[in-house]
Amino acid sequence: MKDIILRQPSEIFFGKDVFQKLPEHPLLKKGGSVLALVAGPLLSLVKPVLDKIPGLIIMIYEYPGEPTFEEFRNLQKKLGQDIPECFIGIGGGSVMDSAKLLAAFADGKQELEVSAGVGNLKYRSKSVICVPTTSGTGSEVSPIGILLNETTQVKTGFVSPHLVPDACFVDPVLTTGLPPRITAETGMDALAHCIEAFTNINAHPAVDTYAIKGIELVSGSLLNAVKDGSDIQARSAMSLASMYGGLCLGPVNTLAVHALSYGLGGSYHIGHGLGNAILLPEVLKFNLSANPERHAQVALALGAENKDSFEETALAGIEILKQLSIDCGIPQTLNEIGIKEEDLPVLADIAMQVTRLLNNNPRPVSREDAIQIYRNILA
Amino acid sequence: MKDIILRQPSEIFFGKDVFQKLPEHPLLKKGGSVLALVAGPLLSLVKPVLDKIPGLIIMIYEYPGEPTFEEFRNLQKKLGQDIPECFIGIGGGSVMDSAKLLAAFADGKQELEVSAGVGNLKYRSKSVICVPTTSGTGSEVSPIGILLNETTQVKTGFVSPHLVPDACFVDPVLTTGLPPRITAETGMDALAHCIEAFTNINAHPAVDTYAIKGIELVSGSLLNAVKDGSDIQARSAMSLASMYGGLCLGPVNTLAVHALSYGLGGSYHIGHGLGNAILLPEVLKFNLSANPERHAQVALALGAENKDSFEETALAGIEILKQLSIDCGIPQTLNEIGIKEEDLPVLADIAMQVTRLLNNNPRPVSREDAIQIYRNILA
Repeated sequence: MKDIILRQPSEIFFGKDVFQKLPEHPLLKKGGSVLALVAGPLLSLVKPVLDKIPGLIIMIYEYPGEPTFEEFRNLQKKLGQDIPECFIGIGGGSVMDSAKLLAAFADGKQELEVSAGVGNLKYRSKSVICVPTTSGTGSEVSPIGILLNETTQVKTGFVSPHLVPDACFVDPVLTTGLPPRITAETGMDALAHCIEAFTNINAHPAVDTYAIKGIELVSGSLLNAVKDGSDIQARSAMSLASMYGGLCLGPVNTLAVHALSYGLGGSYHIGHGLGNAILLPEVLKFNLSANPERHAQVALALGAENKDSFEETALAGIEILKQLSIDCGIPQTLNEIGIKEEDLPVLADIAMQVTRLLNNNPRPVSREDAIQIYRNILA
Repeated sequence: MKDIILRQPSEIFFGKDVFQKLPEHPLLKKGGSVLALVAGPLLSLVKPVLDKIPGLIIMIYEYPGEPTFEEFRNLQKKLGQDIPECFIGIGGGSVMDSAKLLAAFADGKQELEVSAGVGNLKYRSKSVICVPTTSGTGSEVSPIGILLNETTQVKTGFVSPHLVPDACFVDPVLTTGLPPRITAETGMDALAHCIEAFTNINAHPAVDTYAIKGIELVSGSLLNAVKDGSDIQARSAMSLASMYGGLCLGPVNTLAVHALSYGLGGSYHIGHGLGNAILLPEVLKFNLSANPERHAQVALALGAENKDSFEETALAGIEILKQLSIDCGIPQTLNEIGIKEEDLPVLADIAMQVTRLLNNNPRPVSREDAIQIYRNILA
């Protein structure tokens, strides 16, 4: 068993209505001001609870998708002189990532650009509490924050132990208002985190536990959550799956699915989960030969039956995955989301730069391989 | 899904040789002195690493089993005036528990006796790093510390969020020198933590994940670790299982197995794991009717085949469990460990006081039930 470092918030409050207990958290009573960065559509739902926190300042997050560097700097400027001691991020991945990064850069002593990448952000002096309102990103437990470089249109990952929140409140009630489309796309993102960690060359038994359980949970609950957003049992299962996906990200992380999706998110502003969902089955097909047994285990967690060979079992799993995606109403081709043949080389060029994730892939991915993968799902 | 709070060290270093990295940990570089409480037999193995930590003071833990209140006070006195800023516990449950409690009571502002029980210990101002050298207790991740009341001969549990260590280094190499008997007994304790959490009335999906995986790991590796202590694969699996067992303790905890074992450990000085190992199959038989399906799931994780009913599957699991225990060389009767018929009422009286755990049991346990359970495994 390889050695591994498992990091997560030291306190995770999980379950229906745990958000109601946020105001009692000791981190909010240490003195200094508290800032809550809140996804706009959630404001009316969370405000009654936030109003119970003395001295709390609410800042609305109103950017579409991941914040650009410029947008992030605007958020920083809005903070003004009275730097909060505690940052609460309430929303999806973009909001939680922003709250984490705001806290890390709050004292102005670390440079944003040079802190990008793995391990370059050296400390964080302010507290962070994350409250996910989607089930997908896993940012509430992960050491990752993402900004979009507006010049290159490429996403920039910040990966550091200091981006793991101090605490998180994972309350499935906060996800019940999520529309079916976002539920489906973010849910497929959570599934991708788990599958990509399990089929990763850096896979580890201590992370496999989360990955397999996460796959089982998504497999058993995503469609129910899409069909009936108020199904609290399905929402709870998806909240747990998403958290498990997030726990896969720090120690193992994703592979070619997320790498090939980078360009879709950056240049073409395709939702992060949607890009991953479209790519996932095709990348698994490409990777299968590198480790048929692991891909078969994924298939079993997705509900496939054991076939005569690992390959056949794995392929049956990919079919289940595709059907789940179709049933959830997710587009299956790049054409449907506006990508054309002539875009593929550019997308491949962007993907090739994401070596941080491509290096995790069990089978090497050349630029030509990437173009072929895109082409296979073009129409 | 009920709400639940999951607490654990924010950093877990897991795997072969991670202990070598202990001296680099930031908590050891914050200034102030560092104390390492070390199980005597481990000293020569860990000293070369500890010697790399500037200003570190080594204190040898030399009590048999859980420390009494008096023994704990002696440890406190030995600390002297220069209270360390960081406490490292290197050993089995008794050593790690002691290190956690020394840190919690280091500033002298909390009274030992009134802090016993659940939630009565209110804070901890000193850091704690735990390094398990057995695979059983799970104290490296749990919020629990145990002292033995020398007057009543009853174990006293301290359960508080402030007893969760800041970090732990789980290095299976440190367990390779453990003799077969201790390997077996502590391993059965880890298994008991997982099974008792899964069949608990407070069982929760977010903890079941650890429980089931922990059962699978013990089932697949304990006998190998007992037979060949140097089998690093088996030792690694047991280290992970033990940690998973520990992660079950805070949010869910154990039930009648541990409660009925309390008296064996206190008055009769039977090893904690041994007492649990002898009681486990019989208590599962007693509890089975309260939730046959959950007991069948435990059986499947132990390697049983699905039978015609949950009851039959569960019973097959109990047989596998017994066989594993026998194969590991663990005594199967109370007689073998020196307990006689006339001791049973006293043992039952002690067990009846452990309401903290008995309340978790899926089937009520009367004093008469307890005596009958003991009697069934007397000879």
